[in-house]
Amino acid sequence: MGVELYFFQPLGTNSGRVFLALLEKGVSFSEHELDGPQFEHVRPGYLAINPRGQVPALIHDGAVYTEGAPICEYIDEAFPGPPLRPSDPRARWAMRRWCRFIETDLGRAIMMIHWNRIVPRFVGERSRSEVEALIGLVPDPDRRRAWRSAYLQETPPEELAESERRVRSGAAHIEAALARQPWLAGPEFSLADIDLLNYFAFLATWSPQIVNAGATPHTVEWIRRMGERPAVQALRERTRLPPRTAGAGG
Amino acid sequence: MGVELYFFQPLGTNSGRVFLALLEKGVSFSEHELDGPQFEHVRPGYLAINPRGQVPALIHDGAVYTEGAPICEYIDEAFPGPPLRPSDPRARWAMRRWCRFIETDLGRAIMMIHWNRIVPRFVGERSRSEVEALIGLVPDPDRRRAWRSAYLQETPPEELAESERRVRSGAAHIEAALARQPWLAGPEFSLADIDLLNYFAFLATWSPQIVNAGATPHTVEWIRRMGERPAVQALRERTRLPPRTAGAGG
Repeated sequence: MGVELYFFQPLGTNSGRVFLALLEKGVSFSEHELDGPQFEHVRPGYLAINPRGQVPALIHDGAVYTEGAPICEYIDEAFPGPPLRPSDPRARWAMRRWCRFIETDLGRAIMMIHWNRIVPRFVGERSRSEVEALIGLVPDPDRRRAWRSAYLQETPPEELAESERRVRSGAAHIEAALARQPWLAGPEFSLADIDLLNYFAFLATWSPQIVNAGATPHTVEWIRRMGERPAVQALRERTRLPPRTAGAGG
Repeated sequence: MGVELYFFQPLGTNSGRVFLALLEKGVSFSEHELDGPQFEHVRPGYLAINPRGQVPALIHDGAVYTEGAPICEYIDEAFPGPPLRPSDPRARWAMRRWCRFIETDLGRAIMMIHWNRIVPRFVGERSRSEVEALIGLVPDPDRRRAWRSAYLQETPPEELAESERRVRSGAAHIEAALARQPWLAGPEFSLADIDLLNYFAFLATWSPQIVNAGATPHTVEWIRRMGERPAVQALRERTRLPPRTAGAGG
């Protein structure tokens, strides 16, 4: 049996990190793109695969794997190919700490700021009652609340300001690490770099006041080196930007 | 150089999981208990070790390791002793998924409900302005906000109700897993069991309406089997309950 991946376009965050881990590892897989604007991730067909209604989901030998971070470690453990985690235990600890920071601290702040670009792409021209009905399909109450306040643009200004502060301090923290070492967790490329590309690197386009050659030269140089990797080039070729607005996706 | 651990009493959640992982692994270590009611975790001495002001912190060969989940994997990778993670990649994925669920989904809900027992233990008889000054020492704004709303008992009732719902559904999810297999992530004891003990098992005492022999027989039996493990017995011997109220600590 083969490998299949269910994901969203444009490839980024949780979908992008798993897609890129498979490419870096050299695993061939069938692609199942879910239709975000049709809320396909919370329809019965996909809920039968992941009852939480979240992407991505990986299928390997008939078994389902969910949640980005554990899937990425699984990919490194279950398939042959170049290692995506350092062999030294301290560097591996650093990698896991960075992955947590990027996803939960930095990533949450970035998403809060950029929800107002992401949500309109999902809801389209629908009426408010149609959108409320779609949001009602989301199984997790926390996720439902996040969708609703983003749709209604109800995020309190002080939370947005706090998220801005977090993104700035996170960018400085990342710049300091990349000034010391070529890859985020140390001398070796790792899952931490995969996550950083998918959760953060698009700020060079979307938030150039934060990520730019003057303020964060080592980060910009790291983005350039990432762009030389064949797997990252393949990810970019597979990333389909939405028709009207420029989007995420590394 | 040896191994040192900075932690809070009573041993539970992030401090308890790392303490128990060291005991299960058979690692000997020096104990540094931080004085919670003196807010020692946000004083300069400890901030020099962990600038985020969070426990636990592990020192090994002079290097500092922070954040419970990555420390636990580090302990399993860096020290000899019985493995704390399954060798099969799918069971290992299941372990990591459970650890995330226990800490972020279930653990956050349990903490929200029980903050009103935990915070008074830290703040004692101090005046409001003294408490505000102490809370002001917490480096992370999210943590500061959590402390403040717990201290002022400002958690909105609908968030408390949602947390109650999450704890109930989490308890059912755990019971279903323990009905299928002896340990949380499969046939082998793992870090998922260590986390479950430290974040959840005390509900058998604190929330007996949720965890009890009638409603969750496999969970109660799992707690009994955990109690037979020498490391768990050693953890309980090391756990110092606060003087007046019964506390957590597995």
